[in-house]
Amino acid sequence: MTSDATDHGSVLSAGLPMAVPMPGLPGHVRIHEVGARDGLQNEKSTVATEVKAQFVHRLAEAGLTTIEVTSFVHPTWVPQLADAAELMPRLADLAARPELRLPVLVPNGRGLERALELGVREIAVFGSSTESFARANLNRTVAESLAMFEPVVARARDEGLRVRGYLSMCFGDPWEGPVPVARAARAARRLYELGCTEVSLGDTIGVATPGHVVALLDELTAGGVPIGHLAVHFHDTYGQALANTLAALQRGVGVVDASAGGLGGCPYAKSATGNLATEDLVWMLHGLGIETGVDLDRLSATSAWMAEQLGRPSPSRTVRALTHREP
Amino acid sequence: MTSDATDHGSVLSAGLPMAVPMPGLPGHVRIHEVGARDGLQNEKSTVATEVKAQFVHRLAEAGLTTIEVTSFVHPTWVPQLADAAELMPRLADLAARPELRLPVLVPNGRGLERALELGVREIAVFGSSTESFARANLNRTVAESLAMFEPVVARARDEGLRVRGYLSMCFGDPWEGPVPVARAARAARRLYELGCTEVSLGDTIGVATPGHVVALLDELTAGGVPIGHLAVHFHDTYGQALANTLAALQRGVGVVDASAGGLGGCPYAKSATGNLATEDLVWMLHGLGIETGVDLDRLSATSAWMAEQLGRPSPSRTVRALTHREP
Repeated sequence: MTSDATDHGSVLSAGLPMAVPMPGLPGHVRIHEVGARDGLQNEKSTVATEVKAQFVHRLAEAGLTTIEVTSFVHPTWVPQLADAAELMPRLADLAARPELRLPVLVPNGRGLERALELGVREIAVFGSSTESFARANLNRTVAESLAMFEPVVARARDEGLRVRGYLSMCFGDPWEGPVPVARAARAARRLYELGCTEVSLGDTIGVATPGHVVALLDELTAGGVPIGHLAVHFHDTYGQALANTLAALQRGVGVVDASAGGLGGCPYAKSATGNLATEDLVWMLHGLGIETGVDLDRLSATSAWMAEQLGRPSPSRTVRALTHREP
Repeated sequence: MTSDATDHGSVLSAGLPMAVPMPGLPGHVRIHEVGARDGLQNEKSTVATEVKAQFVHRLAEAGLTTIEVTSFVHPTWVPQLADAAELMPRLADLAARPELRLPVLVPNGRGLERALELGVREIAVFGSSTESFARANLNRTVAESLAMFEPVVARARDEGLRVRGYLSMCFGDPWEGPVPVARAARAARRLYELGCTEVSLGDTIGVATPGHVVALLDELTAGGVPIGHLAVHFHDTYGQALANTLAALQRGVGVVDASAGGLGGCPYAKSATGNLATEDLVWMLHGLGIETGVDLDRLSATSAWMAEQLGRPSPSRTVRALTHREP
């Protein structure tokens, strides 16, 4: 079997999924594509810079408009993305297109300066709801890490950049277990108050369920954070990501994070992060009659191609079904 | 790694998923477990009768109360379940427990008589929404197959049996593409009018999305079929099963079909049916604070054990996450 789009167009061209809108949902959802950054960062294999550049180009051709492309963290921490400075010039043609957003992750002020030098127009910072993960990932308390972001966010905003605030462990934590709604809401609200233009609520270990999602969103909007400034970032570790997404859409969320082909979530790895696959998300959104701008066939072919680069099948159910790949 | 429950209890015993109810959902859901019949019927390997009997016993020990155990179809059609008459006596201890329901599939009057001889108290018949599938699977038109069921259902009801009516291809069909809501509703209503005590709406090729599910349920209830007589049967071929389940719960559905470990849905097979895994369903239901009576640890250990019998990993994301199985 090949992974050409022409090889698996039958279901899509036959009019499936059938679009049947559900009352109360947004008419358009912006997908924040994290495969090139969050996905590749969590893959065992390191991908060549040229392949990454091609990947981002193919994602843009498939109609994705927000593509997080890399991270300016220290190479010792994330060797998979050590080539950020080499990658950015290869994306110059995309960066010149005003309709495309190509955010990069920056861990601190130094990362921000490197990003600014390379002409980046949108950044993301990465915080934690829980002390355990803040210590493990950032070697700081939650309060210290938020304080560290304050000047970074302020400087970025002064430079006219959009700033996304990722918040991890919003629902559960591998050390602490369940995360109280009030605690996650407090940290998320703080990111918003710091000046983040968007706060992405992360279920890093994939344990959330729909009622928990609704409770956190309601707590945040009741506390003054507008729903239009919130995004959701679900992991499919326990298969819950799309049900959680549906609940978030019903509460008015219009930005959803996903990873092409489920990159970063190898189904067999013990450490699977289990990113929601963009294709599975797009299938649901298009079935609900919600516009995404994405060409599902092209996206699926791109993910099948990237799976070949990584030498393992995509964990996305939709990619597998559309490309009919045997083991 | 072993598959003992003691080996993977950390997440569950740490209080995850955290139970956060969502307004408007039922407090209890009855899971109709189809792994032993629908699951094994669609697996390449044929499982020994003794293993099947042990499987059903373990499912009951895990707290499942409705376990579809086999099918009385002709062995030529479904060789995997040719041992129905040998299996039933091995389940006599379970059949004696009044709280347990052990339905069997019967294709026709002859199958019903065999089931009655063996003391079966609940049967299921299997119809189609679409002409293409009715012809392929039953070699009849939709109307002819429904007419064939009429005396079977009547005789079963006369004998005091519960009768479930499966309806396949309710949302999409591999030959016909999208299935109009009115067409699926007409066939489902006919099954109800024939005397089926429960009609299970099947998304046989897994293409449904939540708005489509709601539209079909609304059409049926508006047409006089009470929601309490409807069950949903989703496949995870495109990863949509749990989001669809959530939408059905929001409409008041209280019976959900699922297959332990996702049996019948090998993730790599071209012909994957992609049954919703019972464990993924239970994770969501328990997270929503909905009672199922199921011990998720025991169920997951059972599915890991059955995966060993079949010589391949479970496609259930929850089973994989809870049992941390490397390839």
